[in-house]
Amino acid sequence: MGTLNKKAVCLLSGGLDSATVLYLAIEEGFIPLALTIDYGQLHRRELESAARIARHLKIDHQMISIHLPWGGSALLDSHIPMPENRNVENIPAEIPATYVPARNTIFLSLAASFAETRGAEAIFIGANALDFSGYPDCRPDYFSSFQNSLKLGTKCGGEGKTIHIKTPLISLKKSEIIERAFALGVPLELTWSCYKGGEFPCGLCDSCLLREKGFKEAGAADPLSAHSKTWDLF
Amino acid sequence: MGTLNKKAVCLLSGGLDSATVLYLAIEEGFIPLALTIDYGQLHRRELESAARIARHLKIDHQMISIHLPWGGSALLDSHIPMPENRNVENIPAEIPATYVPARNTIFLSLAASFAETRGAEAIFIGANALDFSGYPDCRPDYFSSFQNSLKLGTKCGGEGKTIHIKTPLISLKKSEIIERAFALGVPLELTWSCYKGGEFPCGLCDSCLLREKGFKEAGAADPLSAHSKTWDLF
Repeated sequence: MGTLNKKAVCLLSGGLDSATVLYLAIEEGFIPLALTIDYGQLHRRELESAARIARHLKIDHQMISIHLPWGGSALLDSHIPMPENRNVENIPAEIPATYVPARNTIFLSLAASFAETRGAEAIFIGANALDFSGYPDCRPDYFSSFQNSLKLGTKCGGEGKTIHIKTPLISLKKSEIIERAFALGVPLELTWSCYKGGEFPCGLCDSCLLREKGFKEAGAADPLSAHSKTWDLF
Repeated sequence: MGTLNKKAVCLLSGGLDSATVLYLAIEEGFIPLALTIDYGQLHRRELESAARIARHLKIDHQMISIHLPWGGSALLDSHIPMPENRNVENIPAEIPATYVPARNTIFLSLAASFAETRGAEAIFIGANALDFSGYPDCRPDYFSSFQNSLKLGTKCGGEGKTIHIKTPLISLKKSEIIERAFALGVPLELTWSCYKGGEFPCGLCDSCLLREKGFKEAGAADPLSAHSKTWDLF
């Protein structure tokens, strides 16, 4: 496969980070294969955001569903309270109740299956290890190890091809991601970050707080606020 | 958690190997959490086998469905011809069309999510690197690497707990697995190996050929043959 038609699977949750990563992959010259995973998240509106972003770009987009019946996260089980720290300074250092056990491992394994089948040489994921929620599966060491596991456990790996796990946002601050997004023309009004998935962002969950802080530090207004009231609910 | 109630997720496809591994996990003193993954395999009868084995043992059993729309395997796409080597000596050394890209990585990532949520300390998988079909995700190096990825990418890993990937069949011949199965009282008549999933095993696919060779070398009759005609189709 020549570099002119190199493909990359882009994990697209519908959030600000994954949308930016998708645009970065395109800027790097990859033909994007967007992949959205409905894992039963209660904030289903991000799935609609993912679909809108993919339609906006007119790209190949797969959405697959997987129900994790064991729950184990505030994002999956409405009986587990969602942390509401109300202020970004109050977000505790420990791993929060929104952690979904092995989520990125599930996402990357599905992306790897898609990538190997379609001959894609990279997987882009919008993981971030700086302005993030302390999730262990967002750290560089984890991604290197997983890339090695894929090298050993795939047919293409045995043939000498590596499926590269690309994490271009891993060491950026949220404000830097937002600056990158504006520069790339990412339709930020189509993205969704709030863990609650209501009609409007709740402004209280960790994801809203980190987004708000990012826009503030980038000195920009969040275009989602103005647009969200024109949306249909998913 | 004491050793008296140690738990293990047991990947149960419904085949001979995974059923034997389930019994081995119980023999080792684990409380089994059986996990069956419907990944859209055309031979759906193995799912019914998995359910029957779990019911026979009266154990916790989760069955989850995931559709891999990209196909890429003769087990997923009826347009890809199933290899019929007709004789076990004819099975070629290369990775066959029944390879499902990243299948064990998908299975193990889901098992890891289940294991972490339920506090299980091991995942049992019936992979075999001897009388197998040449799949890259059945080799010891791959499993070690994946265990390391989990260690880095889970909350419990960060707390010093390892989710052990246990592959007790990895270096056994099929005949040795069958001997082990008889010794453990595995209801082999409930298991299903044929890739085709018809009313009776086809006797021609690689999985049937390896099973037949195993029983021959173990000097035993396959109890499935006698029982299969009494089954309802799934």
